[in-house]
Amino acid sequence: MTFKFSKRVPVGGNDAVGAILQAAADPKVISFAGGLPAPEMFPVKAMKEATDKAFEKHGRQAMQYGSSAGLTELRQLILKRIARKEDVHAKLENVLVTTGSEQAIDLVGKAFVNPGDTVLVEQPTYLCALNVLKTYGANIVGVPMDEDGMRMDALEDALKAHPNTSLIYSVPNFQNPTGRTMPAERRKKFAELASKYDVPLLEDNPYGEIRFAGKHVPSVKSFDPDGHVFYMSTFSKILAPGFRLGWIVAEPEVIQKLTVLKQSADLHTDNLVQYAVTEFLKDNDVDAHVKDICNLYGKRKKLMTDGIKKYFPKSVKYTNPEGGMFLWVTVPGVDDTVALFKKCLKHNVAFVPGDPFFAGKADPGTFRLNYSNAKEDKIMVGMKQLGAALDEALKN
Amino acid sequence: MTFKFSKRVPVGGNDAVGAILQAAADPKVISFAGGLPAPEMFPVKAMKEATDKAFEKHGRQAMQYGSSAGLTELRQLILKRIARKEDVHAKLENVLVTTGSEQAIDLVGKAFVNPGDTVLVEQPTYLCALNVLKTYGANIVGVPMDEDGMRMDALEDALKAHPNTSLIYSVPNFQNPTGRTMPAERRKKFAELASKYDVPLLEDNPYGEIRFAGKHVPSVKSFDPDGHVFYMSTFSKILAPGFRLGWIVAEPEVIQKLTVLKQSADLHTDNLVQYAVTEFLKDNDVDAHVKDICNLYGKRKKLMTDGIKKYFPKSVKYTNPEGGMFLWVTVPGVDDTVALFKKCLKHNVAFVPGDPFFAGKADPGTFRLNYSNAKEDKIMVGMKQLGAALDEALKN
Repeated sequence: MTFKFSKRVPVGGNDAVGAILQAAADPKVISFAGGLPAPEMFPVKAMKEATDKAFEKHGRQAMQYGSSAGLTELRQLILKRIARKEDVHAKLENVLVTTGSEQAIDLVGKAFVNPGDTVLVEQPTYLCALNVLKTYGANIVGVPMDEDGMRMDALEDALKAHPNTSLIYSVPNFQNPTGRTMPAERRKKFAELASKYDVPLLEDNPYGEIRFAGKHVPSVKSFDPDGHVFYMSTFSKILAPGFRLGWIVAEPEVIQKLTVLKQSADLHTDNLVQYAVTEFLKDNDVDAHVKDICNLYGKRKKLMTDGIKKYFPKSVKYTNPEGGMFLWVTVPGVDDTVALFKKCLKHNVAFVPGDPFFAGKADPGTFRLNYSNAKEDKIMVGMKQLGAALDEALKN
Repeated sequence: MTFKFSKRVPVGGNDAVGAILQAAADPKVISFAGGLPAPEMFPVKAMKEATDKAFEKHGRQAMQYGSSAGLTELRQLILKRIARKEDVHAKLENVLVTTGSEQAIDLVGKAFVNPGDTVLVEQPTYLCALNVLKTYGANIVGVPMDEDGMRMDALEDALKAHPNTSLIYSVPNFQNPTGRTMPAERRKKFAELASKYDVPLLEDNPYGEIRFAGKHVPSVKSFDPDGHVFYMSTFSKILAPGFRLGWIVAEPEVIQKLTVLKQSADLHTDNLVQYAVTEFLKDNDVDAHVKDICNLYGKRKKLMTDGIKKYFPKSVKYTNPEGGMFLWVTVPGVDDTVALFKKCLKHNVAFVPGDPFFAGKADPGTFRLNYSNAKEDKIMVGMKQLGAALDEALKN
């Protein structure tokens, strides 16, 4: 039979990035394509102890249905942490636990974006955000960036040009895919523009705690004059992505609606991991653990940029992030980045071509490199192979 | 500020059932309102052991990002179980693990229902299915039931009357809220009608294994001539609802699209519980465990129907399910079931009024009683109080 799918289902519906990751999974290939944290940093033993404790203290509650809003004690611990780390001061009624931060984007898209509405995003941006917002019929418009993130003049132009904008989505810290971070002064302006044009601004901060250089920048939410900024984050980068545990902070009216939609999406987030992470947060020095992650990723990032300096053609541009998991490369003179990807794959090295990160036309010759999940000994070898592939590509 | 929510957000957006459950949560009240399994049946110790094993064998994988389709070994175990239990024979490419079965309904609604499309459901039906399908703009039409579930003559009339039907949703076993079960012959016809009118049929089977009387009836999917039937179920009623672990079985083309949408919804289902339940299934006699649940629920159901016979006004009708967690009461002469609920609450006894289970106009004087989560000593007392409240209501 032939199935008639709804307009929300992507035409073709094939997973281009999935195909790239699959090609890159060949054991001969040194892959900088994925977006995974370093598994050697996962606190397996301490998390097992926390999970045992969760079973011992709350076994039946952890196995029973729970609240759509999330576990109260976990929400309290999240609130304490974001007050201390991000200067975001909120109450229980302001926070919803989500099944990973991806679900927070999904719920906000569902709650705010009617088909045909414009959504403004950084150009380029997190590709899974593009995918989920498209399922709600969003007309996604990319706002140009500079080295300091989304440009505020360009944002204001876009807001004027698209009066039907129902959402702005941004990753201000160590952005995926560029690694760029927005400075404080610009964040203040960002929050003010959201308020001036009366558009909700979804601040997605998965990487904020993974800073290995430079100084912390306060969240956009901390500059929020009147509730237009929704702040979201996750335990994926500091504890365990496999647990699918994120949260969103917004005005109570927004949280209420998102909670109703979450009830329809999956009733509530897995109780076992909520109880386990609650016990983990109480019993462990999370800041020290995060510092270890930062040290490792900072070392890997430096190896990667050292390799770029040593092996890449001199015309190649790249970002030099102070945190997060990715850097962004631009190869002038390359038009077809997917063809470039295939050439590099012949040299047994892989990345994600820039194209899927763009709403609309992609900047040619761009790609994303991941350093968090690349072992130190592979980074230099991989950069050498990638440099040779780029040399060859530029000569043809 | 005033937020402009999308058309998908329920107007009012308040959770009527939540309010009822909250009122029923007063410790003075004997509540048959909830829909929870009996927590005393949760295999806490064995699940803790399985989780420990998951950490020991697969700690880093359980904490790392995983596949959107779900853990291969778990999918294999699910396939073996549904082949044996439900005569559903499928391959890996036919099964997607979901974050509870609620997510399976969400993804199918997202993938098949364009705004304005008709969705046919049993009248009454599972209220969270109504809620999620409404967020996709479905025009939900209730198909009349008799004691054997959805009437096939009425279904065929509805399919003719609504050529824009994009989905049929049904709970053929021990339906929520009525407790009714569809006989085999009717299931065969059901699958044939879905095929004849070329409409996908979502068979939701959360309660099928919880049979405490009568004979097993094969799944609708087992009669599926050509892939129109999608079969979904969950571990919520046989193991632990708090783990949010369900699955859906359909043609590979459908599973592919649902997997793309799942990736946008929450990337993948929590890995820790997938590994833990996999270990649990390998090390434990799940059939024996399910039998214990059936024995308990069968005893509670009998106490409840004994109480109804003893204490309820003779004009009251009720279903007598052979499994599941609910029975359905009709009180002739009552127009306003919510007013009846409030009267009963004064007698310190609670149920869920029928209204939210109906697409469109509700049958008056109907309500749902849950017996799975009611302790034996409370059931008789509660039925006596409810009988007194009904007597009083019918006299006024």
